[in-house]
Amino acid sequence: MDGPIPQLDPELAARLRRNADGLVCAVVQQHDSGEVLMVGWMDDEALRRTLDEGRVTYWSRSRREYWRKGDTSGNIQWLKGIRIDCDGDALLVTVDQSGPACHTGTRSCFDTFEVPR
Amino acid sequence: MDGPIPQLDPELAARLRRNADGLVCAVVQQHDSGEVLMVGWMDDEALRRTLDEGRVTYWSRSRREYWRKGDTSGNIQWLKGIRIDCDGDALLVTVDQSGPACHTGTRSCFDTFEVPR
Repeated sequence: MDGPIPQLDPELAARLRRNADGLVCAVVQQHDSGEVLMVGWMDDEALRRTLDEGRVTYWSRSRREYWRKGDTSGNIQWLKGIRIDCDGDALLVTVDQSGPACHTGTRSCFDTFEVPR
Repeated sequence: MDGPIPQLDPELAARLRRNADGLVCAVVQQHDSGEVLMVGWMDDEALRRTLDEGRVTYWSRSRREYWRKGDTSGNIQWLKGIRIDCDGDALLVTVDQSGPACHTGTRSCFDTFEVPR
């Protein structure tokens, strides 16, 4: 009774230019404040899951597994929209972030260190 | 009469976690509007030049050369600030973007295509 294996929309897949590991860079932005929260990585399946579920899923390069943000921490990213950049190797993912985005407990992964000038 | 070769601040360099090509991802955001303009790549020298000159310089992966944004197009990125993310492999570069950021002529590289849902 299994259905067909779900796949990313082929037209969308054709727009992506993946790196040697099959990944594109995903920049994650809070939809209303404009704050940049983090950068993650997605393969086609992570992008498909994100679109189908309305919750952001990444490919974890360190753990080598899919990682749906918030499953462990509770800090869910609800999907608002996705844009693809001009050369197809970066996504801009707008979200409604529940709680902190960073595993360190800060709202953004960029909150830790500002380069002195 | 040449001085010492300029180097990136060692403390800053120690915070970076570069990919196999020696690069970190740079997310570029307009400082006042919060708009995400593009994603580029920097090695240590591109980051040093960016900090020293106050104008954003990337490493072009396709042309394999340094690329100071605006030298050809006139669309300069004036540096406002740089933050490093929690695991050191991404930078958030805030700029004042002169004209369009994208080579296609749009303000942002993410203006071209929104993924339908």
